[in-house]
Amino acid sequence: MKLNKIAETLNIQCDKDIEILGLNTLLDSNENQLTFLENKKYVNDLEKTKAAAVLVKEEFALKVPKGTTALVCDEPYLSLAYISKLFAPKVVETNGEDCIVGENTTIMPNVYLGKGSIIGSNCTIMAGAFIGDNVTIGDNTIIYPNVTVYRDCKVGSDSIIHAGTVIGSDGFGFANRKDGKYIKIYQNGNVIVGNDVEIGANCTIDRAVFQSTIIEDGVRIDNLVHIAHNCKVGRGSILVTQVGLSGSTILNEYVVMGGQSATTGHLEIAPFTTISARGGVTKSITEPKKQWAGFPIMEHRIWLRLQGKIAKLLK
Amino acid sequence: MKLNKIAETLNIQCDKDIEILGLNTLLDSNENQLTFLENKKYVNDLEKTKAAAVLVKEEFALKVPKGTTALVCDEPYLSLAYISKLFAPKVVETNGEDCIVGENTTIMPNVYLGKGSIIGSNCTIMAGAFIGDNVTIGDNTIIYPNVTVYRDCKVGSDSIIHAGTVIGSDGFGFANRKDGKYIKIYQNGNVIVGNDVEIGANCTIDRAVFQSTIIEDGVRIDNLVHIAHNCKVGRGSILVTQVGLSGSTILNEYVVMGGQSATTGHLEIAPFTTISARGGVTKSITEPKKQWAGFPIMEHRIWLRLQGKIAKLLK
Amino acid sequence: MKLNKIAETLNIQCDKDIEILGLNTLLDSNENQLTFLENKKYVNDLEKTKAAAVLVKEEFALKVPKGTTALVCDEPYLSLAYISKLFAPKVVETNGEDCIVGENTTIMPNVYLGKGSIIGSNCTIMAGAFIGDNVTIGDNTIIYPNVTVYRDCKVGSDSIIHAGTVIGSDGFGFANRKDGKYIKIYQNGNVIVGNDVEIGANCTIDRAVFQSTIIEDGVRIDNLVHIAHNCKVGRGSILVTQVGLSGSTILNEYVVMGGQSATTGHLEIAPFTTISARGGVTKSITEPKKQWAGFPIMEHRIWLRLQGKIAKLLK
Repeated sequence: MKLNKIAETLNIQCDKDIEILGLNTLLDSNENQLTFLENKKYVNDLEKTKAAAVLVKEEFALKVPKGTTALVCDEPYLSLAYISKLFAPKVVETNGEDCIVGENTTIMPNVYLGKGSIIGSNCTIMAGAFIGDNVTIGDNTIIYPNVTVYRDCKVGSDSIIHAGTVIGSDGFGFANRKDGKYIKIYQNGNVIVGNDVEIGANCTIDRAVFQSTIIEDGVRIDNLVHIAHNCKVGRGSILVTQVGLSGSTILNEYVVMGGQSATTGHLEIAPFTTISARGGVTKSITEPKKQWAGFPIMEHRIWLRLQGKIAKLLK
Repeated sequence: MKLNKIAETLNIQCDKDIEILGLNTLLDSNENQLTFLENKKYVNDLEKTKAAAVLVKEEFALKVPKGTTALVCDEPYLSLAYISKLFAPKVVETNGEDCIVGENTTIMPNVYLGKGSIIGSNCTIMAGAFIGDNVTIGDNTIIYPNVTVYRDCKVGSDSIIHAGTVIGSDGFGFANRKDGKYIKIYQNGNVIVGNDVEIGANCTIDRAVFQSTIIEDGVRIDNLVHIAHNCKVGRGSILVTQVGLSGSTILNEYVVMGGQSATTGHLEIAPFTTISARGGVTKSITEPKKQWAGFPIMEHRIWLRLQGKIAKLLK
Repeated sequence: MKLNKIAETLNIQCDKDIEILGLNTLLDSNENQLTFLENKKYVNDLEKTKAAAVLVKEEFALKVPKGTTALVCDEPYLSLAYISKLFAPKVVETNGEDCIVGENTTIMPNVYLGKGSIIGSNCTIMAGAFIGDNVTIGDNTIIYPNVTVYRDCKVGSDSIIHAGTVIGSDGFGFANRKDGKYIKIYQNGNVIVGNDVEIGANCTIDRAVFQSTIIEDGVRIDNLVHIAHNCKVGRGSILVTQVGLSGSTILNEYVVMGGQSATTGHLEIAPFTTISARGGVTKSITEPKKQWAGFPIMEHRIWLRLQGKIAKLLK
């Protein structure tokens, strides 16, 4: 879509007819992508962006680097929401190539296979599963009944997805308009699940707003776990039942999250960290191999001391 | 159903043959409905009821207003449970008018459309979705795969329901019999979801025991959220992942509930209230526009002070 | 499968050709089952085992009783994981007897009925439900849409399973290999749900690793509840929304678990115990009929006192 046409939908003056292929963050955008700056704490990223264009408030227009077109507006995030719809693919494709299914793969009755999807060999796709358009599934993978994989997502080889789990639902994103209406940020990214991953029943893994929500190789996820958009769950990590990861949480390799633990999002957890059951991670954890507990989070040994103090208080 | 026939099933003497069309609360019942009084804190409501009849203990029989028939029994709530079954519609209808589907609406394969349901125009109902009998869905609404909408529920226009979500399952209601058996209170109400609502994946919204569980216009609900019977979620409210609302919780407009927060039920939260992540709301919040946290709930600024005190305790 | 063939897959020397029919715990194994000892706190159980053979470290080999063959290895639990796969039935059966369906039972469209399953009379199995191979369902039971019952599970009579619930998904079990790879413990047990049980929407009940996860008669389970492998939920127990039971939790009869409460697993709760909302049970509760709250768990009256102390601290 041409940049001048996009600008026109926002009533912004712009005569550049560069082809825009998608939306992305300031740092990750390339010369065919459009980005935005809402929060001034990212001004440094603005100066480094390689995006074709950026939605930006007037006060930051001078900081837009050469080679990037400034689209000046009052509410960049709201403008992003409006144009995110222009880049949203259809919910279901009616045209396109049919699905390709590998050898020795069993497709049970009542399975829906989307256009352009590719299923590897020796897979079992069980009744009631929904495999959306352009989904890729590796070899030897089992998809249990009533699993939904939204369009454009990828699942690796030797993986198991238990019944009722949803992969690729929209991340929870919207901009606030002054009249109180929420404008949806279309979630045009996807989910990538690696190899040798097992995901329990009735989990939800949201697709990324831009790029991918990532579940790396060897991860084990229990039932009823929620993983928000743009999270990364590092290799070998273990998420016990009812864990909730807020948006853009990065778990490095071999992180263990106990049952009902959670993160507040936009933070990173060091490798080999253990979060005890019910732990609520409110800040990044930078030192590896430690155990944490409580909400707000504290080192587990401190949490034990706190329990001792509370016991004393009760005497 | 005639009142004398209903009374007969409970072994209560009654010769009135008024037509009873349903069950309802003391205050909401009309002259063709039957109600009950179990808890004496509602005696004032008894005196105002316009119900055709009321299940009531002997001690309160004299407080039943003229025009309302007293059905005297030892355990009114248990009696209500028994007769709730008489008013339960069939789980599935085999007779009745077929579904009406609007223009430009896509119904994918493996979708079940119940008798008498009405789907608006420009909708997409994706594979594996179940639309029960007498369900109404507005225009431009997307129902993702493997969603279940139970019979008699309504979903508005311009709404999105993500995969695996269940709308209209039975509220968690039963009466205790002295021998330890639970008698189901049939949940004969429904769920009404407004316009411009987005509901995430694998949520559960229970139908009302009487009347409706209501999700008003503009609400945004994340994944794995539970909303119990007879809740009302006010216009523009936001419920983040893994929130749990207990029965008869009333959220006024623009309430924000953080991740994993919850309510104990039968309470009301003022407009523009924010409940922080993990907040456990144990009482009504009457003053609007404040932020709350912790369990039991306290003002967020008090909660911050508490964290300071705890930090000091640990030194 | 012959014991010597099993041993061969683990590179363990063994010439006994006893027929091994399955895996089990030390105490529950019979003379056709294989067991293991990993944790030395179960050495007493080793001395009592009646298993045909036991995977055991060299240091405990002398404690293996006569009549039981010791399979000596460095990592018994990891070895168990490897051989658990040998006893896993196929995910889906393509041979076998067709399903038997009782009188007056309604099977809606898009239902999958597995080989050898038996559905009683007067049941309703709603659209999108998956009934796996060799599943048994009693009389008068309602299975709502998009429910998944995995192979070999049993559901009793007069029970209701609400939409999206998953019964019999794999328990969360794996052994750690030194290189960081997790080896799946195949969950070869099942789930047994009793009579007069109601289970809410989008719950997950995992199958046992050996034997059965058990939901006894008269139990009531709300929505989004998780029950891990090898739990037993005693007769008449009530589990409110978003409860999480960790593996091998035993609830005795008439236990009430409030909303979002949880257990850490491998513990037992006395009859008629009430756990308040959010309670986190970290140890067995042996005295019946008491109320508990908080995390770590304490008696409810102590928890109330703690809230008083905290209120004072804030003044």
